[in-house]
Order: sequence, then structure tokens, then C-alpha cells
Amino acid sequence: MRYHVNGEVVPATEATVSVRDRGFMYGDAAFETMRAYAGRPFRWDAHAERLASTCDLLAIDHDLTDADLRERVDETLAANDLREAYVKLSITRGVQPGKLTPDPVDDPGVVVLVSELPRGGTAGEEVWDDPVTAEFVDVERVPDAAIPSRAKTHNYLNGILARLASDADTALMLDGDGYLAEAATSNCFFVRDGTLHTPSLDGPILPGITRETVLELADSEAIPTETGRYRPDDLRTADEAFLTNSTWELRPVTAVDGERLTAGAGPVTGRLMDAYDRRVEREYYDQS
Amino acid sequence: MRYHVNGEVVPATEATVSVRDRGFMYGDAAFETMRAYAGRPFRWDAHAERLASTCDLLAIDHDLTDADLRERVDETLAANDLREAYVKLSITRGVQPGKLTPDPVDDPGVVVLVSELPRGGTAGEEVWDDPVTAEFVDVERVPDAAIPSRAKTHNYLNGILARLASDADTALMLDGDGYLAEAATSNCFFVRDGTLHTPSLDGPILPGITRETVLELADSEAIPTETGRYRPDDLRTADEAFLTNSTWELRPVTAVDGERLTAGAGPVTGRLMDAYDRRVEREYYDQS
Repeated sequence: MRYHVNGEVVPATEATVSVRDRGFMYGDAAFETMRAYAGRPFRWDAHAERLASTCDLLAIDHDLTDADLRERVDETLAANDLREAYVKLSITRGVQPGKLTPDPVDDPGVVVLVSELPRGGTAGEEVWDDPVTAEFVDVERVPDAAIPSRAKTHNYLNGILARLASDADTALMLDGDGYLAEAATSNCFFVRDGTLHTPSLDGPILPGITRETVLELADSEAIPTETGRYRPDDLRTADEAFLTNSTWELRPVTAVDGERLTAGAGPVTGRLMDAYDRRVEREYYDQS
Repeated sequence: MRYHVNGEVVPATEATVSVRDRGFMYGDAAFETMRAYAGRPFRWDAHAERLASTCDLLAIDHDLTDADLRERVDETLAANDLREAYVKLSITRGVQPGKLTPDPVDDPGVVVLVSELPRGGTAGEEVWDDPVTAEFVDVERVPDAAIPSRAKTHNYLNGILARLASDADTALMLDGDGYLAEAATSNCFFVRDGTLHTPSLDGPILPGITRETVLELADSEAIPTETGRYRPDDLRTADEAFLTNSTWELRPVTAVDGERLTAGAGPVTGRLMDAYDRRVEREYYDQS
């Protein structure tokens, strides 16, 4: 595999950053995870916009343009001859003098990692092998007052600690008031009486791009939606549940805290998965 | 300068880690910052113990011994011919397959960074140029329920955001209940009516090694001490205040939120600074 590091495409074995890069020293970096279909990143504009927003929140005042960043993504995909891929694009504050307070960004670090992912779309495979089980853990989501949850950063220990605390396939996290926030690397949805529910962005919730896509698809499918604040029991007693992120798309949750919800994807989940596949198919694979 | 990276001493320009090292991808790393006096790290045993505790909390189950880590620190100091130095020792979870849930640690990353710092002790210079002003910021300290504050990790954006939010020299942070936690990279002390106060470790407070040393010195100097939970006004109206960390030792705070406390080090602060210098002198420089 070849990666893009600070302007150059290099073999993975030579893809390194300085130990004094603030991305390494402090996790002082913004990132996006995307999926490429047919060689093009899905919803690039939305990812570029959120990346810019994270950089604003962290005051990583680089002067890279969206077009420049997109070019580096495209070059990395091309260098690996990849059309269906996982893509991680990171911007770090770079190497600066040895103090915590940041200086203006002179020389940001830019890293693009890719790996192969089977194609999406109606003819594609799922990127996950199976639906997941999930359980609530004691590790709480970092509150917005400490680090804004809408910033997608290299400070990822909160999610790692949640995963370590869980015996299920993935960990569900609450906010400090005991409301459902999100899973360790994904947004969480559930269905009750035909209505799709997901935590509103008032809480410490990443504004997931797949989350947004799913809400749009629910609208177009005439599936009623509600956002709000929910308790663990709302999820445990739901009719269906699923998680979303850019690489998983929609991933069914079959059990929560050992309470069985569905055998695989429930009926509403299945409709949304089909609608998602059709959207990908239409935008990336249909040449007719 | 030469650094120690994964077992080798290399020039700073070649001191790099893989972009797939989890220390870079997620800030998934433990660290200690130390000061070396006369070529030896101050309170090595305490730092080694806290580093082991952080690795336990993060389940970074490496099999490096304290002696091995100490040897890497010593080698780095020797390679740079440094006796008075800042030392940062980091252990990362290393490169692992591309998922958030960690695997057992096969090949941890180990990095030692150093830079020159003027000698401490009674004959030494202060490592800081001046006392500081401080102010309370809206950025709250990450709560223990999200990431334990006794873990010293590469997830440092909380402190960076606090520094960015402050116009003073340093930022003071509250916990979620509005009590004084700590400053962005240091523990906080204040003096009222001759008694030394510092937040107790019940809150989201790093158990600073300099903090502990200062409390021991206060005991030996017969300065009364109290630990507890304090409000911003307790600090704003204190007689004296200072911050502690391994590189600053004790650093006087002359003003909080624009409220002037002292011109330089207050009398109790000064006594503790002298006692600290004498301890360093006795243990590291006195050859008689």
C-alpha cells in the first residue's frame, strides 16, 4: 500500500511523521474517514466541510484548499489502483516549538491512509461480516464543554476505553446525564412502532455524515423520524436498532445488553439499507 | 538533538513514527515528562510507577521493564551530552490492524524526547522567565468517567483548547461541577492565612509528582496544608498562588482573572521554592 504524507506518495513502510509532530505528541489533529465508491469519495463536500469545521474548532488555521485535499485523496487512490476503498484524511498542526500553546500553523501535516473495501451499492458486499451486539458501558462520552463532539480529532482514547470496557461487539456510551450519546465509532438509531429515532445533536454527538444521509433517506422513504434524548431502556426495548458510520454504512444491532432485538436487519433497517445502496448505485455505478 | 525511537538513538530529523502507529492515529499512548538534574531524572521511580499505571488504565500491556525504559532515557541524555534537561518518555500501542478495538501489544512504540533545560537547585536558574497570570476558561476538564485524569496520555486537546481560550499566560480549568481542577499543564496551589491549599485527587486532577513533592516539603517546613474542592473565588481572593509541574517546579501566579495576588513569589511560595531547590541540590548536586 502507498500513503500520502505531507505532499508525497510513499510506500507504507516509509510513511512516517516526526515524533515532534503535534499530531503524535498530543493527538492535535483533525480527520475524516470516508468511503470511496468507483474511485470517488462518497459525499466529499460534506466531509470537506466537517474537516474545515474541526480545524476551525481546533484553530488549525492551515491554508490548504478543499481542492488540494481532494487531489491528495485522488492521488492516493490512484497510486494504489483502488476504486472501492476506506480513506482516512488527517490534518495535523505539524511540528512546532516545544510548548502546549499552539503557534499559527506554518507547515501542517497532511496524511491520507487508504485500504481496500469491497464495493458498496446494490451489487456490493457489506463491509462488515455480521450484524453486531452492543452493550452500554460505564465510560461516558467526553462532554462538549471539555472537547466539542462535533470536532473529529485524533484524541480517540474515549472510544478506545469504551471498546475495552465492552464484551459485546461494540460499546454504547451515555452522556453525563445518562442519555444515549453514540457508540464508540458510530451513531446509533433505533425503531419503535415504525418511527426511526436517533439522539439529537444537542447532546455530545458527532454529526455523522452517514447519520445525516440516513435521515434524508428516511424522509424520502416516508419513514417517520424523531430526534431527541433517549434512555438505555429505549434502545433495549426497541423493535430494531442499527449503527452508522462512513465505512459500515448501516450495520444492524441484533442485541443490546443481552436483550435480543432482531435476528438480522429488521424491516425498517432493511428498507433504509436498500435505499442507501440504491443511492450509492445511482451516484457512483449507474452509467446508463 | 538526538532522540530515542523504538530502540535506536537517531538524529531528530530521522526521529519518526509510522502514520499507522496508534499513538499518531488516536493519541493512544502513555507518557511522562521529567526533568533531569546532573544527568539523572528527578524522582524516576515515581514517574515509572505513574507510567505503568497509565499503561494499565489504557491496557497497553507491554513487557518493557522500568530498567529498560530508564536505560533509554539515560542513553538519550548521554547521546546529547545533556545533564540538565527536559525529558519526555512515551509508550504507544504501536502499529496494529485497522480497527479501533486494540489487540494485545506486540510491538509497543517507545519514544524519548529531550531538550536542554538550565540546572535547578539553589545555584540554578528558573526554567520559566517570569511568574504567570492565569484565568479561568469555559473549557472544562475532561471528567474521570470519560477518561481517567490519573492517566497521562497523548490525548491532550482538552488542555490545548483551554490554552487557546485564554488571553492570560495560562488557563485554569473547572470540573463539571464548577470546582477548580487544574491548569492546562500543571497542578494549582493557593495560600490563604498561611495554609497551603490544593484540589484533592477526588476530582479530575492529575496526581502530579511535583504536586506530591510540594505537599511533602510543606509538611517538612511545618506549613499547614489542606486538600479539598475549591471555587474560582477561593483562588481569586487568595494571598498567594502557584502552579506546579515537572519542568516548571513551582511557578508563581501573580494574578487570577485580572485580580492581582502578589508581585512575584509570595512568602509561603518562596519558602517552598527554596525547600524544593534544596532538595534538588542535596540529591543531585551535593558531592560533599
